[in-house]
Amino acid sequence: MDKKLILITNDDGIQATGIHTLARLLAPLGKVVVVAPHSARSGAGCSITPTTPVILEKVPSPLTSTFTPDDTSCCLDDIDWYTCTGTPVDCVKIACEQVLDSKPDLVVSGINHGDNASCSIHYSGTIGAVIEATLKGWPAIGYSLQTFKREPNFAPYCDAIVKIASHALNNGIPLGECLNVNFPEVDKLQGIRVARMAKGEWSCEWADASNPHGKRAFWLTGHFTNLEPESTDTDCWALEHGYASVTPIQLDMTAYNSLQMLKKNLE
Amino acid sequence: MDKKLILITNDDGIQATGIHTLARLLAPLGKVVVVAPHSARSGAGCSITPTTPVILEKVPSPLTSTFTPDDTSCCLDDIDWYTCTGTPVDCVKIACEQVLDSKPDLVVSGINHGDNASCSIHYSGTIGAVIEATLKGWPAIGYSLQTFKREPNFAPYCDAIVKIASHALNNGIPLGECLNVNFPEVDKLQGIRVARMAKGEWSCEWADASNPHGKRAFWLTGHFTNLEPESTDTDCWALEHGYASVTPIQLDMTAYNSLQMLKKNLE
Repeated sequence: MDKKLILITNDDGIQATGIHTLARLLAPLGKVVVVAPHSARSGAGCSITPTTPVILEKVPSPLTSTFTPDDTSCCLDDIDWYTCTGTPVDCVKIACEQVLDSKPDLVVSGINHGDNASCSIHYSGTIGAVIEATLKGWPAIGYSLQTFKREPNFAPYCDAIVKIASHALNNGIPLGECLNVNFPEVDKLQGIRVARMAKGEWSCEWADASNPHGKRAFWLTGHFTNLEPESTDTDCWALEHGYASVTPIQLDMTAYNSLQMLKKNLE
Repeated sequence: MDKKLILITNDDGIQATGIHTLARLLAPLGKVVVVAPHSARSGAGCSITPTTPVILEKVPSPLTSTFTPDDTSCCLDDIDWYTCTGTPVDCVKIACEQVLDSKPDLVVSGINHGDNASCSIHYSGTIGAVIEATLKGWPAIGYSLQTFKREPNFAPYCDAIVKIASHALNNGIPLGECLNVNFPEVDKLQGIRVARMAKGEWSCEWADASNPHGKRAFWLTGHFTNLEPESTDTDCWALEHGYASVTPIQLDMTAYNSLQMLKKNLE
């Protein structure tokens, strides 16, 4: 049987420990090709690069020996590594036409430094790449970890990452859907919860940035609030209680329930 | 009764004729405040600016006298104009905390130069701003026109723009939903069609960009295909047949139909 083809990308850039961990974990499951932004592109959402050329480069493996899960070192030399100066979506688009010889069996993005639960999914470059892969008809998963530490301990999440990726490789994901997986920062996961997107909001989003030229300048920041903290079926609840959340995401954003009312009023 | 408060933004930047047209058309409906990117941010999606400060400036009206719908000139001096160096999403975020004194009754984004039908919605900065407004609980509409002309003739769309905006001002939009309105390039609209997002795909997305330093460089381009051309209930069908399309969009992307199957397999 042919080896499975697995494309890996992220939004934190090719130097991030999250993507190194994904590459190490998934290398035993198939032929891994990494096409990642050459530098961090956090908050890139589904943005693309329409106004400047994008540069694609094959690069040496950035893997060091600091963390290697058991029995994977054999496959690590077989990983192909590329950087792209565009966004995470551009990485998937350019992998499709300029890097991969065939359709991947799975696209994986992350592990993001910072969670992408609730409404944060809309801003996420990690999920942007996953949405692009889904638009191309490829099974895709985004992994994110609720910490901004540069070198977090990914060990508590390895089993869940491989379990969910193996599920997608073996069973596929329905066309037009993808998986958004988030991990809490814990020593040991309570388990996996399949959960819906919580209603949430960001507030207090701007911090004054003093500017020597007298302009009004601000840093984007913010405080996230889960607007339905009592609901036990959401991604935020799972994270707050030590579980990994798995949320199936659909790309058709049509609000079907509103079609008839609008037809009556606008047609 | 207090005047309605209308926030206008776009992704083509404050100099684009599309946003000038929106400002002129909506000024008679309320107090208009414009907070737009200081330069074009096409393809920005829901991206945000986490790594550099964003500058906010009050600027003089960029309106010229080239196109003024009847009886609106009286209100044009009352429009406040701001630029922001961030993305369309940043414009809405900064308007919320640093510009507006109260919650807007309506947020309008556009008129985009280029349509945002089908899957293009995911890449759209125009719709990014609309999604952000919706996350804040504000009724929001995105308008886009299927042309890349710098100075298209917006006259055929004025009645529909005002009709849809008035509908939203008078009736609201369900929480968590917004409207994505697209216009075909025509002399006269056939009418308005309330429509779902068509399944579509972009292909042939990279054109070689010669690079004097020997790097592999590419321009993002592409060809869009409507994957269900026979379906008469889609936004693409409406545009192809001379109608404006109005698509209600929901921000909860949870694929509810897949929750049970995943629970069985992953929990």
